[in-house]
Amino acid sequence: MPQHTPEITETGQCMECNGADSLVATLVNSGVEVCFANPGTSEMHFVSALDRIPGMRAVLCLFEGVATGAADGYARMTGKPACTLLHLGPGFANGMANLHNARKGQSPVVNIVGDHATYHERYDAPLTSNVVGFAEAISHWVRRPRSARSVALDAAEAVRAARVAPGQVATLILPADTAWLPAERPAPGLEAPGPAPVYQDAIEGAAKALTNGKKTAILLRGAVLYGDGLNAAGCVAAKTGATLFCDTFTPRMRSGAGAPVVERLPYRGKDVLARLDEFEQLLLVGAESPVSFFAYPGQESWLTPPHCAILTLAHASEDGNSALIRLAEAVDAAPDCPMVELAPPSLPADGPLTAEAAMRIVAALLPENAIVTDEGITSTLPYANMLAQAAPHDYLALTGGSIGGILPLSTGAAVAAPDRKVVCLEGDGSAMYTVQSLWTQARENLDVVTVLYANRSYAVLNQELKLVRAASKGDKALALLDLHNPSLDWVRIAEGLGVEAVRAETTQGFADALRAALSAKGPRLIEAVL
Amino acid sequence: MPQHTPEITETGQCMECNGADSLVATLVNSGVEVCFANPGTSEMHFVSALDRIPGMRAVLCLFEGVATGAADGYARMTGKPACTLLHLGPGFANGMANLHNARKGQSPVVNIVGDHATYHERYDAPLTSNVVGFAEAISHWVRRPRSARSVALDAAEAVRAARVAPGQVATLILPADTAWLPAERPAPGLEAPGPAPVYQDAIEGAAKALTNGKKTAILLRGAVLYGDGLNAAGCVAAKTGATLFCDTFTPRMRSGAGAPVVERLPYRGKDVLARLDEFEQLLLVGAESPVSFFAYPGQESWLTPPHCAILTLAHASEDGNSALIRLAEAVDAAPDCPMVELAPPSLPADGPLTAEAAMRIVAALLPENAIVTDEGITSTLPYANMLAQAAPHDYLALTGGSIGGILPLSTGAAVAAPDRKVVCLEGDGSAMYTVQSLWTQARENLDVVTVLYANRSYAVLNQELKLVRAASKGDKALALLDLHNPSLDWVRIAEGLGVEAVRAETTQGFADALRAALSAKGPRLIEAVL
Repeated sequence: MPQHTPEITETGQCMECNGADSLVATLVNSGVEVCFANPGTSEMHFVSALDRIPGMRAVLCLFEGVATGAADGYARMTGKPACTLLHLGPGFANGMANLHNARKGQSPVVNIVGDHATYHERYDAPLTSNVVGFAEAISHWVRRPRSARSVALDAAEAVRAARVAPGQVATLILPADTAWLPAERPAPGLEAPGPAPVYQDAIEGAAKALTNGKKTAILLRGAVLYGDGLNAAGCVAAKTGATLFCDTFTPRMRSGAGAPVVERLPYRGKDVLARLDEFEQLLLVGAESPVSFFAYPGQESWLTPPHCAILTLAHASEDGNSALIRLAEAVDAAPDCPMVELAPPSLPADGPLTAEAAMRIVAALLPENAIVTDEGITSTLPYANMLAQAAPHDYLALTGGSIGGILPLSTGAAVAAPDRKVVCLEGDGSAMYTVQSLWTQARENLDVVTVLYANRSYAVLNQELKLVRAASKGDKALALLDLHNPSLDWVRIAEGLGVEAVRAETTQGFADALRAALSAKGPRLIEAVL
Repeated sequence: MPQHTPEITETGQCMECNGADSLVATLVNSGVEVCFANPGTSEMHFVSALDRIPGMRAVLCLFEGVATGAADGYARMTGKPACTLLHLGPGFANGMANLHNARKGQSPVVNIVGDHATYHERYDAPLTSNVVGFAEAISHWVRRPRSARSVALDAAEAVRAARVAPGQVATLILPADTAWLPAERPAPGLEAPGPAPVYQDAIEGAAKALTNGKKTAILLRGAVLYGDGLNAAGCVAAKTGATLFCDTFTPRMRSGAGAPVVERLPYRGKDVLARLDEFEQLLLVGAESPVSFFAYPGQESWLTPPHCAILTLAHASEDGNSALIRLAEAVDAAPDCPMVELAPPSLPADGPLTAEAAMRIVAALLPENAIVTDEGITSTLPYANMLAQAAPHDYLALTGGSIGGILPLSTGAAVAAPDRKVVCLEGDGSAMYTVQSLWTQARENLDVVTVLYANRSYAVLNQELKLVRAASKGDKALALLDLHNPSLDWVRIAEGLGVEAVRAETTQGFADALRAALSAKGPRLIEAVL
């Protein structure tokens, strides 16, 4: 078996490639620049190709859920896919929970999954599994080449599939022999279909509805929450009296000074119904009609009030930003209407640290152009509105409800935007799922400040236990929601993973710690004891 | 919606159950006594039922892979299933890698996966996923009841499915409304078909082969490696001159003094072929013909030499223990032939700690009746034979090749066998996948000593990179296999998770640390710096 040492041209083409070379070169040709990797034996040729083919940054993750969540965060901040490198079925499985979040966040992701050689699969070796079944259960697009000759084209098509608007999960399963055998030259990148333009009828229909005198809610999701349609939406609202909303959990939104007022829908279904009760029309822009996060006994799942008509300006796969700009023109909205002004909250007086005080301090100290990532759940959701008048920032939430998304997401966002400070708001229960993220942040010296809310419980579940009317005062049930005994020591955990950390138990202590962390470069963790 | 407060009879039957009550009571009736749980909202009725229905121990895990791996370890030591409690598709996905290991280890496991209410699924809420697709990709048996009325019988059938010999993965997906609506009374446990008896023809055929003068290897796997057939196999070998082998990675084997000599097949395919070259016959007892763990360019996947005939005494689903006892009689083997005598290695002189010295010390100090769990890979596999003459113990290996199996497995084994010391041999790379296990060990005060081999690399991949002939001297490739920068500080990580820990860098220091840890009760971690 010859050792492949391909000749690389100035444009990054390799002239005598094995499958792995052709794969990496095609990914680079297709605009994939970062690989979040947790490789094993079946990925060694891919790993080796990273040294021969220029243009791909490799970021090592110590757990696959970190890799997939980081790819999600990278995609949200760049609009384009990173790739992940995962090891057979079990490695892919470890990444599935955050692929679920990516899928619900409409993020483009390209998974490269090494598998056994084509001729080895039949022997049912220990690592043989139904990797195609795993992949199909979560991906929009799956392919498993049988020959190194097709790998280049397969890779180009995987990237195109990931980039189909609004963003998809594409999984390419690569049998080891298709990586090591001689391959075709790398393929050029394929053009991905962008978002479809919105029909003029939809613009005119929406404009007519907004001027018919009925009270209208506009629900925004996807690229319109951070693209150039966002301020147009604000001007439409100012002109027509409509109210802008976003879902409880949004993939990404521009927030703070300079953005329009966008109200977050409440988490609980009955609160959503109450809030929307005054509206006669709901206009969807990239969004779906709101539904309850979970079902609860005797409560509604469908959260649009019966008297409220549902209209659509743009579907998720359509160009909502242009549609909003056209809508603003159609309703004669001023293009330069006023937006939110900078008015962050003042710092609270010293005292025991509370979740509310912590959010107030975050909003007060937030640097300009930060990326706020939020999985604090009970510790943050009730207070997140304090960020509305903070310095301009992007706000990224957990989209698929699979906790353990935000530490990886923050990692990927920091890779994507090295000049921006990432402020990660995270609960202790959630953090434990993907705590390995901190090591990658340390290794890559990523500029992430993690605020770790240590309430030492699955606090949300104490609420949920009541909501589902399963209330129990028994020791066994409550013990399953409690994270004392032993208490997690987040300073030691973070330091053990290479991240500087400090504990804060007062408002003053937290403000000092946050100020110090924000002024430093590189990862820091603050254990905010509540 | 009424609050169900079922009346519990003295025999543990509940008279007015909701689905969750009937599920828990049926599981208890079916002999399931432990639940490794990582619950969420959709599992709150199950959690609540744990307080109303006696007989189920609930063990909280902070990551689902800990729960499934612990259920694997529990099953290996008790021969019966624990249940896991997992939260929707993503929660199940996080447990899949260790379900893969359980499946390859032929362990019975019952997964209870909460899902959205039946009527809520259509709304595609954030946590909606293809949970049936996830489950079917890894489970032997899957069911998703549509009514609380069938949950009791479904649960009984799930346990029976798990107990079908030699052990299966059964997954019951429970929509939330089937947990909270009124249900039938709990079902009685169903009898599971035990292992099938071996036909007399197979016994006679094997006896004839063993006395035909040809050189014979006997390959053992499954219950025969720790059941009463093991010593019979030793006496068959003593009588006939056959050699006993086990796979490189076995679910469980009795080892040390009092067991017969069983030789472990090497990891590398060409070494297996070389070792088996002298044999003319290979007799399988619960095992399959050996195959290469991975495929490598230009190397064989099929590892039985062409001149070696393959015979089967017992398939995995058959009663290999009885078959070996019958075989011993058929070849006239002495029933009380001599076994391995206690002769542990002596302690090494003081000096820098090496992997070899560490294993020597473990073998020397191992207490009687310990459970040794091993995922040390490059740090342990070359030296594991030192355990062969140590005190009697059970030895549990990673079965499916999905690293991150052993910390959870050790957790479950310790729950299953509270009076036995668990000695867990683990690599630093592997440990990071399921490090949350340590917290559960602390919470439950489980008697596990973890020897954490800190070589600060994916050492096995440095070997594999060469084996697949993808050798690269480039920085990118090698960086992906290296865990320095930053070095993991295992003492801090363990302490942060509530487990006492100490670092050892010399043989003397390691021996002292191990002696102290073995003499204490409860979890301890020793970072063995290599």
